[in-house]
Amino acid sequence: MTTGQFKPGLDDVVAAQTAMSKVDGENGILIYRGYAINELAETATYEEVAHLLWVGHLPTTAELRSLKDNLASQRELPAAVMTAIQALPTTTDPMDVLRTAVSAYGAAANMQGNPTLDQAIALTARFPTILAAFQRYRNGQAPIAPRRDLGHAANYLYMLTGQEPDVRHVRSLDTYLILLADHGMNASTFTARVIASTEADLCSSITGAIGALKGPLHGGAPALVLKMLQEIGTIENVRPWIVNNLDHGGRIMGIGHRIYKTYDPRAEILREMARRAATPEFFALAQTTEQTALDELHRRKPDQRLWTNVEFYSAGVLYSVGLPGDLFTPTFGVARVGGWTAHVLEQMQKSRLMRPQSDYIGPMGKKFVPIEQRTGE
Amino acid sequence: MTTGQFKPGLDDVVAAQTAMSKVDGENGILIYRGYAINELAETATYEEVAHLLWVGHLPTTAELRSLKDNLASQRELPAAVMTAIQALPTTTDPMDVLRTAVSAYGAAANMQGNPTLDQAIALTARFPTILAAFQRYRNGQAPIAPRRDLGHAANYLYMLTGQEPDVRHVRSLDTYLILLADHGMNASTFTARVIASTEADLCSSITGAIGALKGPLHGGAPALVLKMLQEIGTIENVRPWIVNNLDHGGRIMGIGHRIYKTYDPRAEILREMARRAATPEFFALAQTTEQTALDELHRRKPDQRLWTNVEFYSAGVLYSVGLPGDLFTPTFGVARVGGWTAHVLEQMQKSRLMRPQSDYIGPMGKKFVPIEQRTGE
Repeated sequence: MTTGQFKPGLDDVVAAQTAMSKVDGENGILIYRGYAINELAETATYEEVAHLLWVGHLPTTAELRSLKDNLASQRELPAAVMTAIQALPTTTDPMDVLRTAVSAYGAAANMQGNPTLDQAIALTARFPTILAAFQRYRNGQAPIAPRRDLGHAANYLYMLTGQEPDVRHVRSLDTYLILLADHGMNASTFTARVIASTEADLCSSITGAIGALKGPLHGGAPALVLKMLQEIGTIENVRPWIVNNLDHGGRIMGIGHRIYKTYDPRAEILREMARRAATPEFFALAQTTEQTALDELHRRKPDQRLWTNVEFYSAGVLYSVGLPGDLFTPTFGVARVGGWTAHVLEQMQKSRLMRPQSDYIGPMGKKFVPIEQRTGE
Repeated sequence: MTTGQFKPGLDDVVAAQTAMSKVDGENGILIYRGYAINELAETATYEEVAHLLWVGHLPTTAELRSLKDNLASQRELPAAVMTAIQALPTTTDPMDVLRTAVSAYGAAANMQGNPTLDQAIALTARFPTILAAFQRYRNGQAPIAPRRDLGHAANYLYMLTGQEPDVRHVRSLDTYLILLADHGMNASTFTARVIASTEADLCSSITGAIGALKGPLHGGAPALVLKMLQEIGTIENVRPWIVNNLDHGGRIMGIGHRIYKTYDPRAEILREMARRAATPEFFALAQTTEQTALDELHRRKPDQRLWTNVEFYSAGVLYSVGLPGDLFTPTFGVARVGGWTAHVLEQMQKSRLMRPQSDYIGPMGKKFVPIEQRTGE
């Protein structure tokens, strides 16, 4: 078999044809099934966008009612999943909880065979319940049952606190969930498609995707933006902190992206969402940090085209709607599961096992020596 | 960014440089770190081969003693993992149990940050315990505590039954575990490396790999070989069954491989292991089925170079040592976790996020219409 050159990050390898989303990093454009993300972000709901990704078009009133009912009626967790969550230490990383609970859900629901839309809905419905249940459990509180009359975003906030959520918080979170729902062939979506290509069940793909999302090079960093902002603390401290950090070779969290070479269109919308949901003090701190960091970076590295990425104001939005830092990445998962499942359903239509090559660079021709005669190497 | 052509199965894409294993499908050769698999299969133990893959050389007596002690002392499951297993329905697919329990183990052990050899050992040690615990639980039996004086293969068999295992069974299983420990850039190993490239923790990679292994196009088929043999039932029925099956466009399970275009070297050794572990009747049935299937296939499709793959006699060996069919694929995982973890440790040395491209083939320029004005598409 003739093989090509080693592609360390698979950068220019086209691993899938997809009708889900198009990322134009040069021009800062993100499209979901034909719609620029800006058209959907503030006017649609997560349910509408999930329908768009899964089915291929925005739902009619009847389709949306049906999907919302379907999602709302499937939020409860089987006893086995709740038991698995509450058996874990309260100090467990919520991404590990999500990975385990989703796997346990697939096991308990006996998710087998070819992925279906019904399974996609069943999984998507339960992500917020898992996280809210763990958040309550680790705080010594009983879980709050989901409310069928609330939408996906509102019910997530409700299950965390038991309080009627602020409408500005709901809109900001809904917009966040829409903006993060899909993004081309990112590492977790790619993982989900590789697993799906073996014809494994949907839950196996999604469990793998959660693992990939956990990595700091992919989804695991937004909490670090919050940590940075908290460390900076005051507007007066922004410039000294950034200058000192860059002088010592440090990174600024939430700036720079492998694909976007201009302002990430999601970051711009999330900035507005953060402005509406945050306290004026917190938003001013975030915006001053962003502007100062961009000014300094553009002055120091004019050829690198560094811009604010989606994580910067994701942190601002998620903190402002009341989430603790370690729920930021799992909440990214709450959004992305819509895209993951849609990609898996698409991948199944043209099933071909993804089995790349590797270059062997190890030794050859070694002879086995029985252990009594072996010496160390 | 210039991108290449779409590669549906990533067939000729080189996704990694590796010193773990080399698969020469044209010549039927499989090499682990310089050793042809034939040199290791019947003389080494799984622990020696795991050391070879993890550390890069076969262990000295002292190194092997240390590794064996380390593995043997880490077989117990944390209470959270046992609780998660026993909360699942007894009808759960054992692959779903393994995926969930491994994820729960990573959660309970707080496996974070860069993968380490200690973590690889900790995970590898626990795979058999998870499966044996579930096998006992679904049969209404209490789990059997692992025995430190037994090797990896022997202790697995011991924990299933509580009986001292037959030495021929131990040798056959140990050889199986060695032969299945690694195999280049197969789909589950690739999955593990993609997840590792995000800098996620080791358990996230391994949980994803289990999901990929579950797929029938990868590791999920050996039980079907057993089912086929049981359906055939008698030597007299072999030829009529195969002829009838092929006449009606059916597949013969355990024949054919994407990479090997000659006899899979693992299949040859496993045939001998099956011969030793099986009853004479069962082995005769398996061998007659294999030979008849190859004869018929070579006659009907002379240009396709179809040969026995690793699954055919994997089924023979695993059935003969006493495993039920639905533990075949999880036991493949017991073997492959050595390779998975070694690949992840290797991947970490040259961290570059694996983020391929996708071709967008969906619509463009759609305009958002508020839901009240939408009509179905």
